[in-house]
Amino acid sequence: MLSVSTIKHLNQLQQKKFRNEFKEFLVEGVKGVDEALRSEAEVILIIIDGKLRDEIEMQKIIKLAEEKEIQVEFCGRQDIGKIKTTDTFPGILAVVAQSEIGLEDLQDGPIICLDEVKDPGNLGTIIRTADWFGVKNILLSENTVDPYNPKVVRSTMGSIFRINIFESNNLLTNLEYLKKRGYNLTGLCMNGDSIDKMKMNNDNEVFIFGSESHGIRPEIEKILDKKYTITGKGSAESLNVAVATGILLNCIKE
Amino acid sequence: MLSVSTIKHLNQLQQKKFRNEFKEFLVEGVKGVDEALRSEAEVILIIIDGKLRDEIEMQKIIKLAEEKEIQVEFCGRQDIGKIKTTDTFPGILAVVAQSEIGLEDLQDGPIICLDEVKDPGNLGTIIRTADWFGVKNILLSENTVDPYNPKVVRSTMGSIFRINIFESNNLLTNLEYLKKRGYNLTGLCMNGDSIDKMKMNNDNEVFIFGSESHGIRPEIEKILDKKYTITGKGSAESLNVAVATGILLNCIKE
Repeated sequence: MLSVSTIKHLNQLQQKKFRNEFKEFLVEGVKGVDEALRSEAEVILIIIDGKLRDEIEMQKIIKLAEEKEIQVEFCGRQDIGKIKTTDTFPGILAVVAQSEIGLEDLQDGPIICLDEVKDPGNLGTIIRTADWFGVKNILLSENTVDPYNPKVVRSTMGSIFRINIFESNNLLTNLEYLKKRGYNLTGLCMNGDSIDKMKMNNDNEVFIFGSESHGIRPEIEKILDKKYTITGKGSAESLNVAVATGILLNCIKE
Repeated sequence: MLSVSTIKHLNQLQQKKFRNEFKEFLVEGVKGVDEALRSEAEVILIIIDGKLRDEIEMQKIIKLAEEKEIQVEFCGRQDIGKIKTTDTFPGILAVVAQSEIGLEDLQDGPIICLDEVKDPGNLGTIIRTADWFGVKNILLSENTVDPYNPKVVRSTMGSIFRINIFESNNLLTNLEYLKKRGYNLTGLCMNGDSIDKMKMNNDNEVFIFGSESHGIRPEIEKILDKKYTITGKGSAESLNVAVATGILLNCIKE
């Protein structure tokens, strides 16, 4: 049985305001909690449905948590009715500390920069895709969905613990800074050269995806070094941003 | 004001059972309805929020519907409260006839074959991506989400009216038939050659994507001509199926 204050805290973490205040977020489900425990992330608390405590996968997690001296609490049916989750209660939750990533931490290889990605599923898929291709750095604009939103976390399928994500307060300023430090700024848009002709000079590349509806902002377009387009001969007006990111990442892999 | 039977019919079309019975589906929102009217699809009825009837985009749609002699009805606030939609009422809806596509209609170029795609957003994104690259044919397994599910339709962003979609009752049998007719069956999986080495011989290709969790079924794997993998050097366990489809389509474009 959980304390009233624990339940209140879990429910607060559904809101961005409190996630920012506590610098914590929720991870739902066995796969995500397992990945959190095996990563460098600081896991603060694990909540498990008491009825599932003897299942093998839960036993494994409990053992791993004990080794790392992480608190595990068990909850009953009444608790579960009070805990807000994205979907039905996933059997297991963890409270994890947000990692403190600065712009300077985006190192070792290219940076994927996303402006105005509003859909949690798209952002989660992009984080997972970056992890597939071994690209470690993501820079998010001030108007992109919170990467610690539970829906984003769930759709990363554990990859959120392996990617450096920097949340910008002013994307234009950050990009100008990176450009001064020698990064090439490459925009993916509707009026560039074909991506099939793209050559990567070195690892100091920022690949910028604008919003699906408005494209790259004019003030950012002005400071781009290059523009590329994923060409297609069909009739759709645009590509989904997660699909576009995947295509780019397949093009730049070594 | 709508009749009781119209409202009942609209709400029935939220369910697959009735969509199959009537061979109809719902299109929500201005963009989708406009694309339906400009396509070869048979639009049966258009419902517009009476308060919005004088807006320019609605006027355009009303004019187009008149030219095509399609019935337009206006609904009031009370009606809107009774009509089920994916989200809040999108201002405009259309009832559209499902197109009668046979396996033989999947012509002119390669076929994208999807097995066990359960997520409506993923299927919608794949249809939209195929339309971007000008690939016209999609073959869906018996255990894939209904392409006329309103969430799928919405996320195709109008592309559903430009793609030939065949819903299989027995995917294995259909694939064996296509193979006999001279198609190459290419599977996208975790243990094939690198997709970067892929060469397309001709247009008679079926590209088969298995489920994200289980991959391609063993009985289908047995009849494949070739297997390819989208290689990545990171740590994610799998790629999202819509992202994988986009990467493939970018690789095979001319």
